Amino acid sequence: MPKQDRSRATRQRLLAAAVACLAEHGWAGSTVSVVAERAGVSRGAAQHHFPTREDLFTAAVEYVAEERSTALRALFPQGTAADDRRAVVSALVDLYTGPLFRAALQLWAAASNEEQLRPRVTELEARVGRETHRIAVDLLGADESRPGVRETVQGLLDMARGLGLANLLTDDAGRRDRVLTQWAALLDDALG
Amino acid sequence: MPKQDRSRATRQRLLAAAVACLAEHGWAGSTVSVVAERAGVSRGAAQHHFPTREDLFTAAVEYVAEERSTALRALFPQGTAADDRRAVVSALVDLYTGPLFRAALQLWAAASNEEQLRPRVTELEARVGRETHRIAVDLLGADESRPGVRETVQGLLDMARGLGLANLLTDDAGRRDRVLTQWAALLDDALG
Repeated sequence: MPKQDRSRATRQRLLAAAVACLAEHGWAGSTVSVVAERAGVSRGAAQHHFPTREDLFTAAVEYVAEERSTALRALFPQGTAADDRRAVVSALVDLYTGPLFRAALQLWAAASNEEQLRPRVTELEARVGRETHRIAVDLLGADESRPGVRETVQGLLDMARGLGLANLLTDDAGRRDRVLTQWAALLDDALG
Repeated sequence: MPKQDRSRATRQRLLAAAVACLAEHGWAGSTVSVVAERAGVSRGAAQHHFPTREDLFTAAVEYVAEERSTALRALFPQGTAADDRRAVVSALVDLYTGPLFRAALQLWAAASNEEQLRPRVTELEARVGRETHRIAVDLLGADESRPGVRETVQGLLDMARGLGLANLLTDDAGRRDRVLTQWAALLDDALG
């Protein structure tokens, strides 16, 4: 492999390992050394890519969030129609279950107590949130020039985040599915 | 003060201190010693009331959740009418902003990685969740015998939890208020 490709591969291994580590062990258990070992990379190489612990973990959550956004758009390569809405809502909620959400939640929880981490994570959350909102508007075919539509989509994403939280300690898939069916219908009425 | 009252006062001081400590410092920074000092109680006395760290913090989150449930019911001493719904939704969402939610979130985040804590917090969350659902159904005047109504109320509480998460790192009150206004109207249509 050319040197540049090897460097990119190392970086991506570190990012994936960082998200997995954060999801499994939380912020307190996630250090650059632990991640480097998990990725099979020397500590020096890890620090070359990410000088600080904050750099590594915010970059990791952002990287995986971007991957998931890309995957979400790819689910509907031809765009969506009004009768895809239940599937779109379900795909949006899937963003908030699974390892990325677990990792992001650990980062948020740590950022709420650590001054060094908070501005970084706040900025990251705003960026990822805007992108998710944009995708949701597109895939739902929502016309934000109509009053209330913007807030309708925002509320849906807040609900998705809350459903993610409800899934943190137990498998909440059955209940979640019933809630989604009901709220997708309410959303459909609201969006017209 | 009689001995029993003094013991109860000590217990309540410990519980309040434990919630504040968890909200401010997270699980990693929350030990029985730190809480005892904050409450002005000896470590021995704290351990007399709560033999383990898990006992102290789950009891604390439960105690404050009960207090908040009682306060929520007390907001509407005469019961509610259909035109109180916007106020009810707002009061329900208020359960998920502020120090109790911060503390509960830190406990959930820790429980997702700590085997010792998880069953305790899972059980606590289920209990508190059922009680909140019951209050929401009452105050919203929701008729759960109608299809979809149960899931409508559940989804609203999921949204409330998600709005709490969005408020963790920044003051999200302005956006939250606009989302609530919109979804309270949709909810009103749904509940009839």
